[in-house]
Amino acid sequence: MAEEENVVYVGSKPVMNYVLACITQFNEGANEVRIKARGRAISRAVDVAEIVRNRFMPEVEVKDIKIGTEELETEEGDTVNVSTIEIVLEKPV
Amino acid sequence: MAEEENVVYVGSKPVMNYVLACITQFNEGANEVRIKARGRAISRAVDVAEIVRNRFMPEVEVKDIKIGTEELETEEGDTVNVSTIEIVLEKPV
Repeated sequence: MAEEENVVYVGSKPVMNYVLACITQFNEGANEVRIKARGRAISRAVDVAEIVRNRFMPEVEVKDIKIGTEELETEEGDTVNVSTIEIVLEKPV
Repeated sequence: MAEEENVVYVGSKPVMNYVLACITQFNEGANEVRIKARGRAISRAVDVAEIVRNRFMPEVEVKDIKIGTEELETEEGDTVNVSTIEIVLEKPV
């Protein structure tokens, strides 16, 4: 997945890495941070959003949550469906 | 967690169990089914919603998605925070 502005891609690293990434983006002036994940990392993406809001930035709100499905190609050439989530956090101005 | 009307609690069973539970509730006349999960089951809850919509009931829409945090007490008496999700599926009338 390509780098995008104000997007934090959640994978299999410790949850606090992504929490810190979100906080950094807000502190650098972003009004909105999009947390994206797919497959099993979806649960961790929800953890990230909740920890940012409950523990560090209570003023931040969940603006939108979208779910979807992506087709991935396996090494064997099969396609598998993977669920995705995008959580948009917003800092009111 | 207590039984509630039109709620499907997603845990660690195979995903198709919960997909079937949702479809059954819609077929029994529900206009809305709430899919709830916490912790690692959150990813599976998103799978359930996506499979219901993409594979079985394309007319069903995601009406709302909420995330939150619950405090659970461990056997040692400590409290731990667990993330939660609630996905509301709606069948337009």
